[in-house]
Amino acid sequence: MKDLDTPMQLGAVALRDRLASGALSALDLVEACLARIAAREPEIGAWAWIDPDYARDQARRLDAHRVSGRALGPLHGLPVGLKDVIDTARIPTENGCALDAGRVPARDAFVVERLRAAGALILGKTVTTELAFLHPGKTRNPHNPAHTPGGSSSGSAAAVADAMVPLAIGTQTGGSVIRPAAFCGVTGYKPTFGAIPRRGVQMQSHTLDTLGVFATDPLGAALVAEALFGFDETDPATALAPPPRLLDTARGAPPLPPVFAFVKPPGWDRADAETHAAFAELTAALGEQVFEVALPPAFDAAAAQRARINMAEMARYHYRYVRDGLDRLGPETRDALEEGARIPARDYLAALDWPKVLNAGLDEIFTRCDAILCPAAPGPAPEGLGATGDPIFNGLWTLCGTPAVTVPILTAGNGLPMGVQLVGPRGDDARLLRTAHWLYGWAGA
Amino acid sequence: MKDLDTPMQLGAVALRDRLASGALSALDLVEACLARIAAREPEIGAWAWIDPDYARDQARRLDAHRVSGRALGPLHGLPVGLKDVIDTARIPTENGCALDAGRVPARDAFVVERLRAAGALILGKTVTTELAFLHPGKTRNPHNPAHTPGGSSSGSAAAVADAMVPLAIGTQTGGSVIRPAAFCGVTGYKPTFGAIPRRGVQMQSHTLDTLGVFATDPLGAALVAEALFGFDETDPATALAPPPRLLDTARGAPPLPPVFAFVKPPGWDRADAETHAAFAELTAALGEQVFEVALPPAFDAAAAQRARINMAEMARYHYRYVRDGLDRLGPETRDALEEGARIPARDYLAALDWPKVLNAGLDEIFTRCDAILCPAAPGPAPEGLGATGDPIFNGLWTLCGTPAVTVPILTAGNGLPMGVQLVGPRGDDARLLRTAHWLYGWAGA
Repeated sequence: MKDLDTPMQLGAVALRDRLASGALSALDLVEACLARIAAREPEIGAWAWIDPDYARDQARRLDAHRVSGRALGPLHGLPVGLKDVIDTARIPTENGCALDAGRVPARDAFVVERLRAAGALILGKTVTTELAFLHPGKTRNPHNPAHTPGGSSSGSAAAVADAMVPLAIGTQTGGSVIRPAAFCGVTGYKPTFGAIPRRGVQMQSHTLDTLGVFATDPLGAALVAEALFGFDETDPATALAPPPRLLDTARGAPPLPPVFAFVKPPGWDRADAETHAAFAELTAALGEQVFEVALPPAFDAAAAQRARINMAEMARYHYRYVRDGLDRLGPETRDALEEGARIPARDYLAALDWPKVLNAGLDEIFTRCDAILCPAAPGPAPEGLGATGDPIFNGLWTLCGTPAVTVPILTAGNGLPMGVQLVGPRGDDARLLRTAHWLYGWAGA
Repeated sequence: MKDLDTPMQLGAVALRDRLASGALSALDLVEACLARIAAREPEIGAWAWIDPDYARDQARRLDAHRVSGRALGPLHGLPVGLKDVIDTARIPTENGCALDAGRVPARDAFVVERLRAAGALILGKTVTTELAFLHPGKTRNPHNPAHTPGGSSSGSAAAVADAMVPLAIGTQTGGSVIRPAAFCGVTGYKPTFGAIPRRGVQMQSHTLDTLGVFATDPLGAALVAEALFGFDETDPATALAPPPRLLDTARGAPPLPPVFAFVKPPGWDRADAETHAAFAELTAALGEQVFEVALPPAFDAAAAQRARINMAEMARYHYRYVRDGLDRLGPETRDALEEGARIPARDYLAALDWPKVLNAGLDEIFTRCDAILCPAAPGPAPEGLGATGDPIFNGLWTLCGTPAVTVPILTAGNGLPMGVQLVGPRGDDARLLRTAHWLYGWAGA
């Protein structure tokens, strides 16, 4: 993106500062976004809904607000893309699903309320896979349109990667923030489970669903996530506690050089040789700041237990799709709903015990390092648009509820980006973002 | 009980006061209990484990403590029976199950710790049905040994009813406190779900399991329950909040005459003619203090949804019994475990939504009355010891998590007691016990 002639290359924090000072107007920024979208959207297909007039109206109001001298929110004038499973009042929210065509919510989701209150500009809705599961949408990878952008937050990742918008919001139930971010070469951040309330977001699995953010760099992710952390009484995963100061912490210098625990997670054998080599090189370059840890055998069960929880809960929440039009769903969704409906409650309840077991193991590792370091995906984005790639390196962290960040600091031989994933202890999101910012700078990105 | 020559007829509160003043020694009281047990236990079979020396040792220590002038706990010297699903350190806890024969826990359950800290004397373990489900234990109804005492807290109810012990602890997942209390003619009290922590109690269903208490009268129930309310971080149903002052509130005069909402709950047609007639008479006698309410049709689904949750969770928690010796379990338990294992997670998750729906309906009723009034069971204890009776009038309130009390103020033509059940809004246990105490006094019991 650095060679593009667009303000987006400044990153969200610098953009926010220029917007606040008046060096850049919200209208100029949104026109840059719209121009980029006009040029590139036919090839990339990142957007599910966009209305230039709606965007310009917000920009004009935000500029007038700034000129009036009134206080500005932390995201004042920053355009944001919203995955189309996030409800927006009076704007279509179709969940990537033919059965939800024409659906227009009456009320904004919690995160949309927060974004508007922080002065963000809702640029439009980004493409999701069908019901945020595995059946792909229309989006292509900006780095090579013959390759998948990943899923399920495909449009959010591709829109940020293609400099159409500086920030976007997505969701992760298996690997749907980290994987597309890694495939598209942007920063993806999935906070600690429960950090961001999910009211008004299509529910797939209350045990796993996590809102996450996309930005070009870790500081941009910290900026937007900080505006979204909170408590909502309708979301029992959230807690009434003061939210962390993500941005200030993330851009502060670590008191000591960060230490990483390099982990070859279950599925390591499915990663390609290039990924194996890249991580050998990366950990060698980090030298004494890295030590390798082998996860105990119990972790091998994590993927199956996560899938069990995901499919059982999806079968419950998506029951109306089964009833109203199973035959109009993609085969991946259909198969999962049918499989999910057969999962016995006994096995589902047993699966719910796994995060506690796994976190007991992780907690010990976290006493010795700032972050676990591992690949974000088994390789760069695979060729073809019929599937969204393998979430094997993401689901474990979703099941455990640990925060995860992928930073785009590696490149494959075919020119596609590869992500380095950092995982931290639950609740210590600020330190994890600081470590990610450090790594991003260390790599010269 | 009033015609027996036993201190038990004083009720737990008066006994406690006499113990505190020294008018009665703990040793004298426990000898009275042991004498009664020696005389009656062969016929009643209320006890799973008892050791007179263990009881006398505690009594002597408690008497020495009192004589020393040190501060006394609120239950100082009061003997208590514990349903044999409640862990007691170094004392067998066999869950009414052949597969747990010889099981001796290392640690007391939360409630046992609380009882000891309050100065109570652990008299022994009372008979439970197998795994607190439907397969009967050895207990007989003290009012007529050819009739069931009810279940699953059979021994706790029978021991208090037979004046073997002034207080006992039980559990309710369907109707296992209220039903045996009603059949045996004592006061049974099931607090608001989550009021009493369940650590160290055999788990059948984390969504439904509720600890409850047995006493001769509502004040005795308030006295012992007050010592048990609390928070335990290992029980997510509990909350960190100040516990209510149950006894002081319960024995205070209501500011206005209590108002009752008479409800004919789902299953009303299964109640016998005597029960129908008794409630017509009772509500007529209460006059303007009663109004009748019909529950909306949604309540008809409650029993099935409760059973689904119960059996699905039981199949998960009792998996080791299935694995280790399904053929050594009673037919009721075996059938339920097999049925539970077949319940799809989707249906289980859908059932979990029901309490919210039902409580929305109940909340409106509770704005107009002090308590809902309804039968505790479809009739007096049925003849025969092969089954423990019908919990149809209890499961609804367990599913909703509302507190319930049964007071023994009615008698059937065959001389067996019948309970009048009062149900209050969640969290307002103190007022419910005050209303129950008022009704108990009003009936001249």
